[in-house]
Amino acid sequence: MITLAVDCMGGDHGPRVTLAACRQFLATHAEARLLLVGLPESLQAFAHERATIVAASEVVTMDDPVEVALRRKKDSSMRVAIQQVKDGNAQAAVSAGNTGALMAIARYLLKTLDGIDRPAIATQMPNARGGATTVLDLGANVDCTAEHLLQFAVMGSALVSALQEGGEPTVGLLNIGEEAIKGSEVIKAAGELLRSAGKSGDLNFYGNVEGNDIFKGVVDIVVCDGFVGNVALKASEGVASMIVGALKQEFKRNIFTKLAAIIAYPVLSALMRRMDHRRYNGAALLGLRGLVFKSHGSADALAYEQALNRAYDAARNNLLDRVRTRVAHAAPLLAPADAQVPPSGMAAATH
Amino acid sequence: MITLAVDCMGGDHGPRVTLAACRQFLATHAEARLLLVGLPESLQAFAHERATIVAASEVVTMDDPVEVALRRKKDSSMRVAIQQVKDGNAQAAVSAGNTGALMAIARYLLKTLDGIDRPAIATQMPNARGGATTVLDLGANVDCTAEHLLQFAVMGSALVSALQEGGEPTVGLLNIGEEAIKGSEVIKAAGELLRSAGKSGDLNFYGNVEGNDIFKGVVDIVVCDGFVGNVALKASEGVASMIVGALKQEFKRNIFTKLAAIIAYPVLSALMRRMDHRRYNGAALLGLRGLVFKSHGSADALAYEQALNRAYDAARNNLLDRVRTRVAHAAPLLAPADAQVPPSGMAAATH
Repeated sequence: MITLAVDCMGGDHGPRVTLAACRQFLATHAEARLLLVGLPESLQAFAHERATIVAASEVVTMDDPVEVALRRKKDSSMRVAIQQVKDGNAQAAVSAGNTGALMAIARYLLKTLDGIDRPAIATQMPNARGGATTVLDLGANVDCTAEHLLQFAVMGSALVSALQEGGEPTVGLLNIGEEAIKGSEVIKAAGELLRSAGKSGDLNFYGNVEGNDIFKGVVDIVVCDGFVGNVALKASEGVASMIVGALKQEFKRNIFTKLAAIIAYPVLSALMRRMDHRRYNGAALLGLRGLVFKSHGSADALAYEQALNRAYDAARNNLLDRVRTRVAHAAPLLAPADAQVPPSGMAAATH
Repeated sequence: MITLAVDCMGGDHGPRVTLAACRQFLATHAEARLLLVGLPESLQAFAHERATIVAASEVVTMDDPVEVALRRKKDSSMRVAIQQVKDGNAQAAVSAGNTGALMAIARYLLKTLDGIDRPAIATQMPNARGGATTVLDLGANVDCTAEHLLQFAVMGSALVSALQEGGEPTVGLLNIGEEAIKGSEVIKAAGELLRSAGKSGDLNFYGNVEGNDIFKGVVDIVVCDGFVGNVALKASEGVASMIVGALKQEFKRNIFTKLAAIIAYPVLSALMRRMDHRRYNGAALLGLRGLVFKSHGSADALAYEQALNRAYDAARNNLLDRVRTRVAHAAPLLAPADAQVPPSGMAAATH
């Protein structure tokens, strides 16, 4: 039996979406239990034999500064949900709330694993092979050292081998074109570390990849610092929205194009299903002494359910032990990380 | 009369594409002259009263290392084309060759402008407003300082005001989400410098933007370091290719979807025209004492012609003087740039 703690108040839509997703999740997972965390009056209508309401008197809003979420709202649904993981009442927590607050609270309550300086956020992006590429970090860390990038690679490998079928997942280091100067000093040093880790059997290093390789599906895991990962993710979302918007505009142009849209409808909806980002909802916060998953704030019930599924699969497949074991195995390579952070690199550690 | 020096041998297709584009360009620009640079035997069939063949005995290939292009092939078509600009025979050079080699040769022959430490590569990306967003740097520089980013902003403003209608173009600083930690120390310092430059009238600073804002068209110019810009560009190309690929696959699925494709054809081709990256071909190498434009290596004649058009418009609108004037005006803010580069930041300066 796996128990998930769900921050039912988080996200743009709150209980309306989270409870609908919980109901659906329970219906398809007979071996799962849920702890529904939030304001009791918002949750009391939900009744299920495998669901228990856990009261929390406060809610972290999407614009609450990290400091407010962490120091002032000590009884928030987000914090109480993570506390359930810390106390061993749940094997994983799920929230659609404010990412910065979630990371800060998770880090404060759960602490990082031995050998990990900084937790990372790993998400999936769809690729042309019909699968998904896992990318990390997605914004938790700026100014990473080579050792941080190696830590991300090790944690990402644990995540993907816990959640996907197949052999040891391949890892690519995000870099710039062959034609241009091949990466900064940090990236070059990370490449050497990753090659060593490949030789010592800590991970399956493929080599450098470029931005477009994320979507080609050249490797299972793409490693980058949080600034680059965040820009790549947002830029990709921007392009996809622009194309979809243009497609809609062109089909709405006149009576003939509207007719064409009706005829092409089955094809267009197949395309939209295939590109549906909701299928990839549920980012993992990796490197903590407990499992936490982040749903997109704007998730609907289908997307939120997907985040619950991912958290469930991660817990069932012992993601935490896998990360711990891999980090321990790679310890000789990981050791000196924060000692080498330049002064400007401490930004991420101060929140 | 504007004269362009064209590296006819560069790119994946060489004279077959470049000469076709030159013919079309001459037909639509009665006030233009071309210097066609390359192997005489490859160019001699081209005859036009406003075109002159300039012999070069060597060709820089797409995989030539920068060192080979710069030190060994001293009579390459790329180098001879840039030499025409240096000697005052042409107002701009255009090449579809190897970016690293082009930048290195251009920098070696032309030198940088006073007040500019590092040239940048600026390209256009289509946006949802039906226009284009200019993004720089696209890979010439990794590990930039805040002052470098300010230089890019100043040069980008000169480029856009030379090539686009409208008032003073707006500049956005590429950063990560509000929710996460707001950028590295370099980005924070760049934000302050850009705000100062906005106040002193050196540019029209909008503020921070995120990856998706490139494609929304929130600002005219997006400034970032070359690593981030390269990843954003390549990731965006990757997403667009994936969506177009999926659209084609879905329409080819069976007889009904193929029929739908025929009916939807006018709409789909309107979409493809709108997203056609060839319309945005022609990246500017900014910060040099002469104008150089880079075409995509895989450009066809239509795309290459667009690069010629951009070079022509830039020369006609005195881009070089505009950059020089703006850089001089912003000199008090720009002064200390390379003094503050960390040791790892020198990578880009060594080639």
